[in-house]
This record gives sequence, C-alpha cells and structure tokens, in this order.
Amino acid sequence: MPPTRTTLRVRYAETDQMGIVYYANYFVWCEIGRVEFFRQLGYDYKQMEMEDDCHLPVVESHCRYRAPARYDDEVAIEARVTAVRSTVIKFAYKILRLTPDGEQLLAEAETVHVTVNKSMQKRNLPEKYLLAIKATMGSI
Amino acid sequence: MPPTRTTLRVRYAETDQMGIVYYANYFVWCEIGRVEFFRQLGYDYKQMEMEDDCHLPVVESHCRYRAPARYDDEVAIEARVTAVRSTVIKFAYKILRLTPDGEQLLAEAETVHVTVNKSMQKRNLPEKYLLAIKATMGSI
Amino acid sequence: MPPTRTTLRVRYAETDQMGIVYYANYFVWCEIGRVEFFRQLGYDYKQMEMEDDCHLPVVESHCRYRAPARYDDEVAIEARVTAVRSTVIKFAYKILRLTPDGEQLLAEAETVHVTVNKSMQKRNLPEKYLLAIKATMGSI
Amino acid sequence: MPPTRTTLRVRYAETDQMGIVYYANYFVWCEIGRVEFFRQLGYDYKQMEMEDDCHLPVVESHCRYRAPARYDDEVAIEARVTAVRSTVIKFAYKILRLTPDGEQLLAEAETVHVTVNKSMQKRNLPEKYLLAIKATMGSI
Repeated sequence: MPPTRTTLRVRYAETDQMGIVYYANYFVWCEIGRVEFFRQLGYDYKQMEMEDDCHLPVVESHCRYRAPARYDDEVAIEARVTAVRSTVIKFAYKILRLTPDGEQLLAEAETVHVTVNKSMQKRNLPEKYLLAIKATMGSI
Repeated sequence: MPPTRTTLRVRYAETDQMGIVYYANYFVWCEIGRVEFFRQLGYDYKQMEMEDDCHLPVVESHCRYRAPARYDDEVAIEARVTAVRSTVIKFAYKILRLTPDGEQLLAEAETVHVTVNKSMQKRNLPEKYLLAIKATMGSI
Repeated sequence: MPPTRTTLRVRYAETDQMGIVYYANYFVWCEIGRVEFFRQLGYDYKQMEMEDDCHLPVVESHCRYRAPARYDDEVAIEARVTAVRSTVIKFAYKILRLTPDGEQLLAEAETVHVTVNKSMQKRNLPEKYLLAIKATMGSI
Repeated sequence: MPPTRTTLRVRYAETDQMGIVYYANYFVWCEIGRVEFFRQLGYDYKQMEMEDDCHLPVVESHCRYRAPARYDDEVAIEARVTAVRSTVIKFAYKILRLTPDGEQLLAEAETVHVTVNKSMQKRNLPEKYLLAIKATMGSI
C-alpha cells in the first residue's frame, strides 16, 4: 500500500514571528496523518480508543526540517507504518508543500508508539489492527 | 480579596507571523489565571476534577484586546470571580504587560463556566468551593 | 451571499483532558473561516498582508459554547461579515457538528478586527476589499 | 556551566484526551529552555533576532518520552548546548517532573538549529554568542 496522503492548509495560528510554521506543529500534522492512515485501513482511531481500549502514546518523535512551511501553504502529509510488533508501532511521514509546479519536501518525521490501555498499562495491539497494518507493509 | 495575580513570559510558540501573540492564546492565559485563583483559595483545580468529580467547562468567553503582547514580554494575569451560583461561575481577567516603567493593560476578558461531572452532566458546585469563592467576593 | 462554509476534522491535539475540544481552539477555527471567506471573495488573506500591507488584528473576540466538540468530529465553520467600515470589520461565525443525521450547533462566535499596516498603525481597508465585503452583505 | 533550569506548571491546554500532555508540547517547553539558556548567558534571544538579525530555526528535533507529564505537574526543563559551530547550534534537554519526593525524568530531547538572517539566508552566529556558548561547554 502506498503511504496515506492527507492535505491541509497552514493556519495562521501555526505560524510564529519568524513568519514560518512553528516547529512543534509538524508533529500535530503527523498525528493527522496517523489518523487518516487508520481511516484508510477501515478503522477509526477513535474507536480503537473507545471500543478496544487501545491507545497509542508516543514514546519517541523525530523530525528533520528541509524547508519552512508558510501561512496558507497547501501541505500534504504522507504516513506509513515502517514497523509493527504486538506492543509497538513505528510511523514514518513526509510533509510536502503542494504548488502548481509540483511538490516540495518540507520535512521527514518518525514517531514510535506503544499500545496501552486507558490506565496507561501496556497491552497488545488487537489482532485486527496488527493484521491490517502488516498488510500495508506487504509483510503478510 | 484582591484578584489573583500570576506572571508568565510570552513563548515564541505563542506568537504568529504578525509578530504578536495569537489572539486565541489569551484564553490559555486566562485558564492559568483561573487555576491560580483556586490555588490561592487553598484548592487544586486538579483535585476538584479528580476527587470531587467537578469540572468547569466554558460556556462563554469574551476578550477585548487593548495592546498586542509580544514575544518574551513579562505578562501578569489577574483573575477574580464576579459571580457564582450553584452551577455557574463567572471569571473576569486583566492581562497586563510588566515593564520596568510600570504596567500596561493588554486585554480584559471574561469566561463563564458551568459545573458538570465527568459525563458532562450538570451538577452543583461543592459547598466548600462555593463558600470559599463567595468569600473572595466579600459577599458572605 | 450565504456564509462561507469550511469543514475540518477535530485534531487530537485540539482536545484536552476533559475529552472535549479546548475552548480557545474555537477561535483558531474562526480564523480558518475568515480566511476562507476572503478566498471565496477571490482574495487571499496572505496577499492582503504581503501585497497591500493590510493586516487584521483582533480587537475583540466572543464565543458562546452550546455543545462540546469532540475528537474526530467533522465540523463546519460558517463565517460572514456583519459590519464593515474603513478601518473595522466584524465577523460572525457558527460552528456546527456534521453528522449523518444532520447538523448540531456547537458554538456561535464574533470577532472584531481593525485594519493596520505592518507596523501596527491604523490604515484604511483597501477599496477593493471594502466593496467586495459590502457586496456579501447585500448593502451595495 | 551546569544546564540552565527553568520550571513551569503544566497547563490544561497542554493536555489531550488521553489525560497526558500532548507530545508536540514538549518541544514548546524545549524552546522555553533555550530562551532561558541565552538569558543566563546574559543575552536575550529577542535581541539576537532584532538587533543582530540572527534567527535560529530548527532543522532537526528529537524527543524520547520516558513518562507522561500530567496537568498541573511542576516541570523543570534543563537545557545545554552540546555542539556549536559558526552556523549550527545543537541543544540537549531533560524534562523532569518535580515532586516533594524528588525528580522524575519525563523526557530527553535534542534540537539542531542553523543561524539565518530575517530572509532565512544562512549567516554566521555573531562572535559574542559563539564565545559565550563555547564557554558553557568548557571548550575555551
């Protein structure tokens, strides 16, 4: 499966006084990419939390910023899973600026997540998610 | 009781590309003022939520911006309660810039809150908070 | 002209520990509505800032919250101008939850803006914007 | 020089519906630590931007989350520079929870910055900052 692609427009609130998007906000965009990844698999992350009591807190985050995003830019977030085990999921992201002339890479990021219940105790990723995610990696 | 006063320094993240603090962030500062108001009364808002199952969602917010706050400004938030009933609390705030030469009014705000339980059902403000708040208003 | 309508999905980052959208974030959504209002008029707010040196800082904001927005809700922001003069614009907004069964009003808001240049000095709203905005109000 | 230490209290706005601090907000805290690092050196980051036209956009960010920060926690941010060259500065951070019983490590982070002018063109870090920073590393 190719990476999930989600588009958004940069909000004024996301800029800072340097006139570019504040660096922490790229991780908010990654979260949007993750959620859409699950939606394309046919699952709501909301349901994963509410019905399966499975939450995905972040244990590691990393971003390399290639070019600044600016106010009102149209931006695409590509998200895919690069590794999954029973209690760990690793996502990789590309953040791209969409212009009439094509795309420009703005940032590359990774996040690592563990699967926990509501009380933040480790638990296994439910089988249905594990299988669906593995299928996106061509590993089943 | 005079208004509770809390000070903070403007974060880079709170500015936008106009070079001033993004307007929604003043309401984040109001929240900080509210929490310190309760702390000065001898109560943790955290405990009000966890031990008394009493939460204070906002049903109305209002702010008049007098002068822009800027990055690294030292800012004071004054908070006081202007009205309280069994299920409603109304706060008023002043946001001030602190400079070596004195204070400058940056904004005035109000928020109105209802008291609810964890399931967002209306409930009464526990008596101890009601009494303590009324005492700050000189109305007991 | 009917109000401009923009839709978005509630981000995880926009929620707080009460499990609902943090109250200040509704004003971020209002900003998105304003920008789309100008885009539907045929103008980029970005160009208004860069080419016409006309900026619209907020001098007053107000929101009445009717029902909480929640994570992953599909939300519509309706924006329209209710008053415009040479140096002041007033917007009104409705925030709605979109569900398969229809729409639910989540919040109503207003913002008042003054027109300034890059140095935050008052200036007139350029004629082209003034006329276009007035046309949306049926007042020309 | 030991790391610069700044303390803050977790804001309600910084939590998410998992009941913990949203992961992107740790990078906002890192920024606060950086600014205080410069202040302890005797410099305002604000002046570096305004008087020296030297800005420090982030080109890489990384965080390992050890334990979740929660609403109203008292948190300390330790910041120090681990590498500096004429156009690059690398910071390392520790985020700690302060409790009556001691400190708990919540997260470790790094950010890498390049020095640019207002137009985002690379420029050298002014000598005074370079020397002052090197002095904190014991490398002069």
